[in-house]
Amino acid sequence: MGKTLNLRADYVIGFLGAGQLAKMSAQEAFRYGWRVASYSDRPAAEPLQWMSPLSYSGAFDDIDALVAFAESCNVITLENEFLSSDVLREMVERTGVPIYPSPDSFEAVESKWKEKSTFQEAGIPVAPFQIVTGEKDFEVFGESYGWPFVLKSSKGGYDGYGNRVVSSIAEAKDGFVSLGGDAGHEILAEAMIPFVKELAVQVARNEFGMVVYPCCETIQTGQICTAVLSPAPVDPDIQTKAQELAMAAMEAIDGIGLFAFEFFLTQSGELLMNESAPRPHNSGHYTIEACVSSQFDNHVRAVTSTPLGSTQMRAPAAVMVNILGTDARPAQLDGALDLLDSDAKLHLYGKAQSKPGRKMGHLTLLGDDVHELYAQGKAWVDGLRV
Amino acid sequence: MGKTLNLRADYVIGFLGAGQLAKMSAQEAFRYGWRVASYSDRPAAEPLQWMSPLSYSGAFDDIDALVAFAESCNVITLENEFLSSDVLREMVERTGVPIYPSPDSFEAVESKWKEKSTFQEAGIPVAPFQIVTGEKDFEVFGESYGWPFVLKSSKGGYDGYGNRVVSSIAEAKDGFVSLGGDAGHEILAEAMIPFVKELAVQVARNEFGMVVYPCCETIQTGQICTAVLSPAPVDPDIQTKAQELAMAAMEAIDGIGLFAFEFFLTQSGELLMNESAPRPHNSGHYTIEACVSSQFDNHVRAVTSTPLGSTQMRAPAAVMVNILGTDARPAQLDGALDLLDSDAKLHLYGKAQSKPGRKMGHLTLLGDDVHELYAQGKAWVDGLRV
Repeated sequence: MGKTLNLRADYVIGFLGAGQLAKMSAQEAFRYGWRVASYSDRPAAEPLQWMSPLSYSGAFDDIDALVAFAESCNVITLENEFLSSDVLREMVERTGVPIYPSPDSFEAVESKWKEKSTFQEAGIPVAPFQIVTGEKDFEVFGESYGWPFVLKSSKGGYDGYGNRVVSSIAEAKDGFVSLGGDAGHEILAEAMIPFVKELAVQVARNEFGMVVYPCCETIQTGQICTAVLSPAPVDPDIQTKAQELAMAAMEAIDGIGLFAFEFFLTQSGELLMNESAPRPHNSGHYTIEACVSSQFDNHVRAVTSTPLGSTQMRAPAAVMVNILGTDARPAQLDGALDLLDSDAKLHLYGKAQSKPGRKMGHLTLLGDDVHELYAQGKAWVDGLRV
Repeated sequence: MGKTLNLRADYVIGFLGAGQLAKMSAQEAFRYGWRVASYSDRPAAEPLQWMSPLSYSGAFDDIDALVAFAESCNVITLENEFLSSDVLREMVERTGVPIYPSPDSFEAVESKWKEKSTFQEAGIPVAPFQIVTGEKDFEVFGESYGWPFVLKSSKGGYDGYGNRVVSSIAEAKDGFVSLGGDAGHEILAEAMIPFVKELAVQVARNEFGMVVYPCCETIQTGQICTAVLSPAPVDPDIQTKAQELAMAAMEAIDGIGLFAFEFFLTQSGELLMNESAPRPHNSGHYTIEACVSSQFDNHVRAVTSTPLGSTQMRAPAAVMVNILGTDARPAQLDGALDLLDSDAKLHLYGKAQSKPGRKMGHLTLLGDDVHELYAQGKAWVDGLRV
C-alpha cells in the first residue's frame, strides 16, 4: 500500500504570514483536505485569516506567540522574508514542529549579501556586489563597476522598496542614510546591469526530488511586477540555462519548499541571478491554470513530504497580469463584466482595503502566443477599477 | 466602468451545510476574494468549518439559530435538501438576506412528488409515479406499471437511501413501513425504468443568463455514484436533448444557482428525468478541471449576481472517479504515490472520519477517450486505502 503520506484530515499547515501567497497556497492545501493556520503581524485582517478558524497574531520576533502558533501546526512554512533564521531555529527547537524552508536554508538567503555570496560560491553568475559602509566604499565601488550603481538594504526589501539608484557620492551618502545604513542596517552596493529582459524560474524540492517550472519573463513597471509571460519569449537555450541555474541554486541552499529565482538577461545573452525568494512568487501565479501542478500545489506538497507534481504546461503560452489598486477605498472590483464572460481566470486576494499600486488580484490567460495574450490581458486590466 | 458587482472583499457567502459540496464551492469563492460562512447540523467538525472563522451550528429547523447565521451573510445558498422551503422563506423575511435557490424554487423540488409533478407539467418526460398510502395503491400501481416498482420517501433520500425496490404487495407493505409511511411520511411509487445508462447535466442560471454543462454519464455501484464520464459516450443528439430538457427544467422552476438534473436513457433512446438537485452535484465534480468555469465556480457566481462563466471543456474527454472510504478510521489516504506523480487531479474532502463507502474524495483525469481514462482512474482508486 505504499509509504504513508501526510494526507490526513487533521493535518495542519501553518503559514507565517496571511497575505495572498499564503492564501493561494492554502487554496491548494484545501484540495488535499488539509487544514491551515496563519500567523500575521498585521493589525487588520489579512486574506488567510478569513479562510481558517486558526488565526494567530503577533510580531515576527515574539517567540512566545510564535511557539503557541507552532504548537497548533504539523508543519510550518512562510510567505515572506520578514523573519530571522534565529527565530525560526528557536521555534523548531522549542516545539519540534518542522519549518520548511529550514532555518539553515532560510539563513543562506536571509540577507542579500548572504544570498549573493552563497550563489556566487556555487558558481552561479551574479552582478558584482559588496557591502558598503561609507564614502570610501562608494568611491571604490563606483570606480570599479561604474556609476550609477544600486544601494540595497541587505534585509527586508521587496518590489524595489529598499533600493536606491545612486549616481554620485552625494547621492550614495543620502541613499545610505535613507536605507538605514547609519542606524546599523547592512547596505549592499550592486553594479547596475543593463539587462534586456528579466526572467524567473520556480523550483520545488523535497525528499522525493526536484521539479522546475518553465522560464518566464517578468515585466516590471516602476519596480513593481505588472505581468508575466511564459514561456519567456527568448531563445530556448536561454530558458534551459535559467532552469539549470535555478536548480543549481536550489541545491546550493538545500532548499525544501518552493523557491523563485529571478535573472537579468543581458544584451550578450548572459544570465545573472538577481534575487531569490524562499516561497511562491508573483512570477509563478500563472502556473495555477497553466501547469499540471501549480507553484502553490508544489509548495504545499514540498513542505508536507508529498511527492511533487508535474510542472508541464497545459497550453503553449500563458500570461498573468497583475490587478493593482487604482483607488484608496474598501476593496471592490468594477468593470469586470466582459472579463467574467471570457476564458481568462480572475483571482482576487480578498484584501479589505485597496490603494493605488497595491497588488489586489491577477488575471491569467492561456493560449498560443504570449504577445497576443499580454495585449488582451493588459486591455482587460486597464478597464478595471479596484 | 460597467455594473457594480459584488466583488467586494467583505462579501460573505453563507452555506447551509458544511460538507464537500460547500467546501468545493468555497474554494471557488476564495478565488474571488469572497468570505464564506457555514451552518451545520452535524455534531463533528465538517470540511467547511475548517475553512472559515464563521461557523454556525444548529438544527435545520432552528429558526433563531438560522437567523443569527443569516445576519452574518450577504447571500445564502445550500448544499443539501434537508431543509424546508417554509424555513428558508422565514429566514428571508426576518433578515432580508437573499437565499438562492429561492424558497419558491426550492419548494418546487422540495419533495419527489412536487418535483416530478413540476417537471411533468413543464412537458419533461418522467417515469410514471404516484403517491401511495396502502395496499390498494400498491396493487393498482403494480398492475398499471408492472412489478417490481420502487417506493421512495418523498423527502430526504439521497444515493439510494430512502428507496426500496418491491416485488410484491407484502414487500411493498414492509417497504412502506420502513420508509416511515405509517408515521406520516409521504411515500411515492415509481415505475422501474429499464435504462441502459444514467446521464446527468448541470445548469447554472441567474439574471445574466443560463449556461449548460456537457451531458455526462454517471456510473452507479450499489446505488452510489462511483464514476462520471464526460461527455457521455452516447449519440450527440441524445446529449443535446438531455441539455435541452435540463434547461427547460431549470426555467420551469425559475432556478437561480447551480442545479443538476439526472436522466435515465432507455433502450429505445428515450430520456426520462429521474432526479434533480438544487445545488452542485457529484456528477459535476469533473468540471473543476475539465471546464473553463466549474459547476462550483458558476454556483458561487450565480448566487452572487455575477455573470456566469463558460462551460466549455478544456479537453476532449474527462473522467471523475470517487474515492470511497475503505476503512472505519480517522481519515488518511494511503497508496497515492504514483497518482501524485501523474497528471490526474486528486481532491480530498477533509472529512475527519472515514468509513466504508463514505465519499472521501475524488480523482479527475483529462484526455482523449473516456473509456481509457475510466480504466486508468479506476485502477488508481482501487489501489488507494482511505
